[in-house]
Amino acid sequence: MHVFEELTSLLEFQLCILLFVAFVGFVIAWKIKQSVIIWEILIGIVVGPSLLGLIMYTDVIRSFAQIGAVILLFVIGLEFKIKDVFNIKYGIIALIGVIVPWGCGYALAVLYGFNFINCVFVGTALTATSVAITANVLKELGKLQTTAAKAIIGAAVIDDILGLLVLSFSIQVVSGTITALPLALIIIKAVVFMVVGALIGHRYLSRLIEKLDSTKLTGKFPESLFILTMTIAFLYGFIAESIGLSAIVGSFLAGVSLSGVIIKQGKSIKDGAEYIQIIFAAIFFVSLGILADFHVLTMPIIWFLISLTLVACLTKIVGCYFGARVGRMNHKDSLTVGIGMMPRGEVAMIVALIGLNLGIIHQDLYISLILMSLLTTVIVPVILRRYISR
Amino acid sequence: MHVFEELTSLLEFQLCILLFVAFVGFVIAWKIKQSVIIWEILIGIVVGPSLLGLIMYTDVIRSFAQIGAVILLFVIGLEFKIKDVFNIKYGIIALIGVIVPWGCGYALAVLYGFNFINCVFVGTALTATSVAITANVLKELGKLQTTAAKAIIGAAVIDDILGLLVLSFSIQVVSGTITALPLALIIIKAVVFMVVGALIGHRYLSRLIEKLDSTKLTGKFPESLFILTMTIAFLYGFIAESIGLSAIVGSFLAGVSLSGVIIKQGKSIKDGAEYIQIIFAAIFFVSLGILADFHVLTMPIIWFLISLTLVACLTKIVGCYFGARVGRMNHKDSLTVGIGMMPRGEVAMIVALIGLNLGIIHQDLYISLILMSLLTTVIVPVILRRYISR
Repeated sequence: MHVFEELTSLLEFQLCILLFVAFVGFVIAWKIKQSVIIWEILIGIVVGPSLLGLIMYTDVIRSFAQIGAVILLFVIGLEFKIKDVFNIKYGIIALIGVIVPWGCGYALAVLYGFNFINCVFVGTALTATSVAITANVLKELGKLQTTAAKAIIGAAVIDDILGLLVLSFSIQVVSGTITALPLALIIIKAVVFMVVGALIGHRYLSRLIEKLDSTKLTGKFPESLFILTMTIAFLYGFIAESIGLSAIVGSFLAGVSLSGVIIKQGKSIKDGAEYIQIIFAAIFFVSLGILADFHVLTMPIIWFLISLTLVACLTKIVGCYFGARVGRMNHKDSLTVGIGMMPRGEVAMIVALIGLNLGIIHQDLYISLILMSLLTTVIVPVILRRYISR
Repeated sequence: MHVFEELTSLLEFQLCILLFVAFVGFVIAWKIKQSVIIWEILIGIVVGPSLLGLIMYTDVIRSFAQIGAVILLFVIGLEFKIKDVFNIKYGIIALIGVIVPWGCGYALAVLYGFNFINCVFVGTALTATSVAITANVLKELGKLQTTAAKAIIGAAVIDDILGLLVLSFSIQVVSGTITALPLALIIIKAVVFMVVGALIGHRYLSRLIEKLDSTKLTGKFPESLFILTMTIAFLYGFIAESIGLSAIVGSFLAGVSLSGVIIKQGKSIKDGAEYIQIIFAAIFFVSLGILADFHVLTMPIIWFLISLTLVACLTKIVGCYFGARVGRMNHKDSLTVGIGMMPRGEVAMIVALIGLNLGIIHQDLYISLILMSLLTTVIVPVILRRYISR
């Protein structure tokens, strides 16, 4: 048994299993015609601690998964122009789509008898959309350039920022130190980063890359430009994280800023980033399944989980549909936006983790938030594929 | 200061610095016309704990570096056919090139007054060549398909196996439990793995990949084949490690076995693996610099280090030159083989680490072995480039 544990803890074994699981996900998705992501998460649950216990959610796997999310958003960013993302209409969708789930999540938790602080955290966990899941489904369907897709991506980015603001606000409420200053400071920092980052990336870094592409450096080492580009992606991710945003907001911004770059001599930036994404985004999705441990579930918790998931889905659909209609989108596009904004993914999981670490919420609420976020993630690709294909 | 430390420990920051350092390595190598690897290691020393302390050798960085070495050897393996590697001539080069350094390393340590057990470890650390460095220099020079290059790669693979056998033998000497059985067992396991692995990879896995390439699975998900290929690379690495070899021997074997695969419909295996290698091999080389902490060095240790490095270089040149001449290679090719076999890299570092962990060697000897291995690594690209270019 000891030898077995030692062998399965080897890095090569873990990567082998993670990638094999991802490959099996592709085979099943091909046979049953569903999104690859769902199968990757579901088989992740099977090989993870919940069932087979072949693989654990170690620090190293968390790091790989984190890189996967960062690269995925960078690659998605590369497919967008700056003006596609920054748009007042998307701001309205994001705002209404944050207020409605927060309020209803809070109310549901009150109904189930949780204390004030727990209720605040449940509301907060429902606010931020995980753009990675929806964007990947849209990418698989080849629908990234539609009006609805642009609205979803744009709103999800703003919504992520709003979600993180709500989180820092909630922590202040909990610790009883509400002051307007830090909150305003985070908002200002976020806005400055988005504007300055986009400007520097678009005006200077893009030009720098194109200029280096015409030198002998690239002629001799065609791979050097690709390394520089990935440096920029992680730099933006780092800056975003260091001012209190999610790293994926930063790498997405890097992708959008560099989307206009044309490489002639060096190795293709987009091809390279996509190859890295193929491996690491697969690990990210499988790890979402590994993260879920079902052992602590009891019947009352299952009921709360079901209600919570329903509230999470309905409030995002209603809030974002309404926001999209306000921005004069048609019925079908607005509903697509509503459905596309449903997945909570890693942001809700981060909120749950912070709550647990601060000792504010307990294991039962923690696992409910994690599973709610997983369920919305599993449901959305199914609904979205059916709805868009019609 | 606390905030600074918290920020620099962020994953995105570490990756950003590692990749930026690698990029600077490219720029300097372009201007000063040297191997990129040397600069990556040297700048790694500058940003690491020895000087700036911007980045530490954490578990996560070690994992990335390990993946880098595994992928690098996989990509190099893809450029070879099976018959290029398994050759009795290379076996002779490897064998003499292991015996001479072991004996002289042992003798040198005796001369410096180390005890018996320490002397055994010094000898062992000198045995195994690190093929990653030399192979990358040859790759940069476009000389991978020459007679000398094939001999170096082939001999280095066998030499790695021999080195690991010497290590397990040394540990038995130290613990006073020398029996012929376990040693014979490791040799048998290694030979069976190499033969069976090459056979299965070449006959069955290659065909499986080509067959999948013609199905609709690849038509729908062109990236799925690339994920399967990387799964095989890590699987071979895992098997190698689990039977007591180095993981890079396994991934190299996977590369060699799959080198004949022709992909028509799916994403290119070779392009994909190269993109992953660009990022992770760069991290591997920079991390070699980060690993070296100069703070424990004193004058007597520096003298021992210089002698050790000289012995390490000369014994490999003489041993492998002689082995190559026995195999009827000409003078220039034999000398190229001798020089190319000099770098010790990660294998010597692993030996040093095991010795330290077992409490057999102390910090002074540990740092000497690490720095010796780094110095041979830094010297070889300089000499090899000059010698081959003449």
